Amino acid sequence: MKEKIITNTLPGFTELLPAEQIAFNKMLDIIRKAYEVFGFTPIDTPVLERANVLLAKAGGETEKQIYRFKKGQTDLAMRFDLTVPLARYVSEHYNNLVFPFKRYSLGKVYRGERPQAGRFREFYQCDIDVIGNEELNLRFDAEIPVIIYTIFKELGFEKFTISINNRKIFNGLFESLNIQEQSAQVMQSIDKLEKIGEEEVRKELEKLSLPPESIKKIFKLLGLKGSCNDVIDGLKKLEIKNEQFEKGTEEISEVTKYIKQFGVPENNFKINLTIARGLDYYTGTVYETKLDEYPEIGSVCSGGRYDDLVSEYISRKLPGVGISIGLTRLFDQLYKRGLIQIKSSTLTKVLILPMSEDTGYGLKLATKLRENNVPVEISFAQNNIKKRLGYANKLGIPYVIFIGEDEVRDNTFFVKDMISGEQIKINIEDISRAIKILNK
Amino acid sequence: MKEKIITNTLPGFTELLPAEQIAFNKMLDIIRKAYEVFGFTPIDTPVLERANVLLAKAGGETEKQIYRFKKGQTDLAMRFDLTVPLARYVSEHYNNLVFPFKRYSLGKVYRGERPQAGRFREFYQCDIDVIGNEELNLRFDAEIPVIIYTIFKELGFEKFTISINNRKIFNGLFESLNIQEQSAQVMQSIDKLEKIGEEEVRKELEKLSLPPESIKKIFKLLGLKGSCNDVIDGLKKLEIKNEQFEKGTEEISEVTKYIKQFGVPENNFKINLTIARGLDYYTGTVYETKLDEYPEIGSVCSGGRYDDLVSEYISRKLPGVGISIGLTRLFDQLYKRGLIQIKSSTLTKVLILPMSEDTGYGLKLATKLRENNVPVEISFAQNNIKKRLGYANKLGIPYVIFIGEDEVRDNTFFVKDMISGEQIKINIEDISRAIKILNK
Repeated sequence: MKEKIITNTLPGFTELLPAEQIAFNKMLDIIRKAYEVFGFTPIDTPVLERANVLLAKAGGETEKQIYRFKKGQTDLAMRFDLTVPLARYVSEHYNNLVFPFKRYSLGKVYRGERPQAGRFREFYQCDIDVIGNEELNLRFDAEIPVIIYTIFKELGFEKFTISINNRKIFNGLFESLNIQEQSAQVMQSIDKLEKIGEEEVRKELEKLSLPPESIKKIFKLLGLKGSCNDVIDGLKKLEIKNEQFEKGTEEISEVTKYIKQFGVPENNFKINLTIARGLDYYTGTVYETKLDEYPEIGSVCSGGRYDDLVSEYISRKLPGVGISIGLTRLFDQLYKRGLIQIKSSTLTKVLILPMSEDTGYGLKLATKLRENNVPVEISFAQNNIKKRLGYANKLGIPYVIFIGEDEVRDNTFFVKDMISGEQIKINIEDISRAIKILNK
Repeated sequence: MKEKIITNTLPGFTELLPAEQIAFNKMLDIIRKAYEVFGFTPIDTPVLERANVLLAKAGGETEKQIYRFKKGQTDLAMRFDLTVPLARYVSEHYNNLVFPFKRYSLGKVYRGERPQAGRFREFYQCDIDVIGNEELNLRFDAEIPVIIYTIFKELGFEKFTISINNRKIFNGLFESLNIQEQSAQVMQSIDKLEKIGEEEVRKELEKLSLPPESIKKIFKLLGLKGSCNDVIDGLKKLEIKNEQFEKGTEEISEVTKYIKQFGVPENNFKINLTIARGLDYYTGTVYETKLDEYPEIGSVCSGGRYDDLVSEYISRKLPGVGISIGLTRLFDQLYKRGLIQIKSSTLTKVLILPMSEDTGYGLKLATKLRENNVPVEISFAQNNIKKRLGYANKLGIPYVIFIGEDEVRDNTFFVKDMISGEQIKINIEDISRAIKILNK
């Protein structure tokens, strides 16, 4: 006998059983629906691109992680995010797009990093971006948290916090302190504040040889907490004379004002001056979202505003703002914590069981129900009734319809609730009654 | 200035503009919906797999076309269809699946072949398969054409033909003629019947040194035409004494009987004894679907029954039946012929235009509409009204809502139909009226 081939997926790659996949798709549908009601248009770009296109915006880490290979003479790579393909897409189709261009993309991306617990090499990203031509109104920055709020409410969460910051605030502070050159290192330390605490961060900043006066100012800024108004007032009282700092303060003040107007409750968003978002290209508003009860999951939806999307490809100034939800990781984290509701292994609402060889009546009933969007299966198995009901039970099909000779003669059928055991007799002329029961 | 990077997609890869993408997604949704109402469950497998897993079932052509590369020590390949990953999935999760296992997969597959007109290297396949454990009722073979019929009706086609054949018929004939060894070559010639005509096929068969008597029998069989009953009667009258032939005749007779019972009109399906479907693994029923008015497109939905899905991976007998729609190609062919209805570049139903700086009232209205699944955008641009309306016009947003000081004071708003120019005044308490208009 030939040796059998290994069938599990590669490390860092995942696939779901039917019940999990149904739950995953439900989350994906909620995200898609939210993106659509906010006026975003679906766009789908290739998974494989020229390597130099994908790496045009990338840094060293990305280059190491990318799946890259040659086919013939072509240097190919698999996309590692949906933002670079968006930049290429907008550059390529600039003349055929209407700005502000609002697009969503749901798709898999690839990172060949060493797989660790909770890290994936193939995972879904769910992105939206609004791209302006030359300029983009700040109200778009305020609409983003509304979308995040809508999605996480719809996903069933009550307690989550959208943190908002503006890159210009710290950049302006660094300018005013004349420490722009160390800004990346300083931000890296600040990013660790929650994890390692104030004292450790202070030590790291001292190691960077920052003047005590500068460290003091940084911590004064980081100490600003409370309501959005409290933080904004605090920022103003710092009296830092720097154009960028003032612009950042003004922007965050405007953005949070609009977020309130949009109706996001105040306990679901706050200003958090410590968040930076690693990516270099953010230039204004940045977002992070955390589940209050599961902070260890980290940010479940992040993004920000960038001034320049496409300069590697075309000579245009196209600013944008966007977010990304890493759905594979989010699902995995929620699933591990038992927070994913697994209902059944099928979308089927009813199994029709013809009790005789003559299946014509059952087939016609199935067609009628399907025409009314009821997912129906017909039990074609010839084995005993117990086994056939076992199929419905194992999958979690909520209803069965028995069809025997009496039913065919009387033009009726019985709808049986598989949980309560209750049976309802329905005349085929009254099929809308069955549809109501099955679609509820 | 740095040189700009090429931004078009690679040959054989495609991406769509928003209006086309919306039309494409609509087709995809129709297919998904049909698969779901027939009781199929979504499954998503990785795009990247171990090369030996994907190539376990593959022949020489596939091996040449596959995107295959090494990352570290791992020999990777991109999936070239959705059937091989299904076989691996079913093998891997055998103990956690309920049989018959009905799954659908919608996803991209990759073939690195030399791109020709109308050929794609990255394209969507939309597959369903029913996998039985040890056995699978023949009625599942009959349900497949019902699904094809449902989908193509829903896609807006009236004139299409689902051709049905059974591999056992020709295999049995070849057995009875003792020419099994040449069967592959004979089938290849028969496959060309429509293209090159009877005389050329006859010449090819003569070159294979088939006895004249055998060629005569083959053409007698190929000559069977007419209604399903005509063909089946014709097959029986051939009086070929071969178990496989008789089994095939019986199966096709049963399958076509059930297809009628399911309600597929007789002008949408027929028996066509000339179709073979290239793939070796089909062992019973095979399907092809052609658009009657565009036969040059070729088959738009094909598939068949196979006895053995998983033997490369596990020692089980799992027969199945399934079909695949190559949606990227179908869309492309229809689009070229002007058969895709391109409506607008957005899903947005209404653009809200706040006429003053105070956008609070407009934001609240937007939230209410979105809560009722109406896709809404808010015009945040500060430029003149003509430009802002231009945005709606260019995208094809069907309605706009103006909000000025009067509207805020009176708790009203105007819904303007962008095509007819008609304006309807609505009180904000009566928002369900607006929802009805916008969702129609």
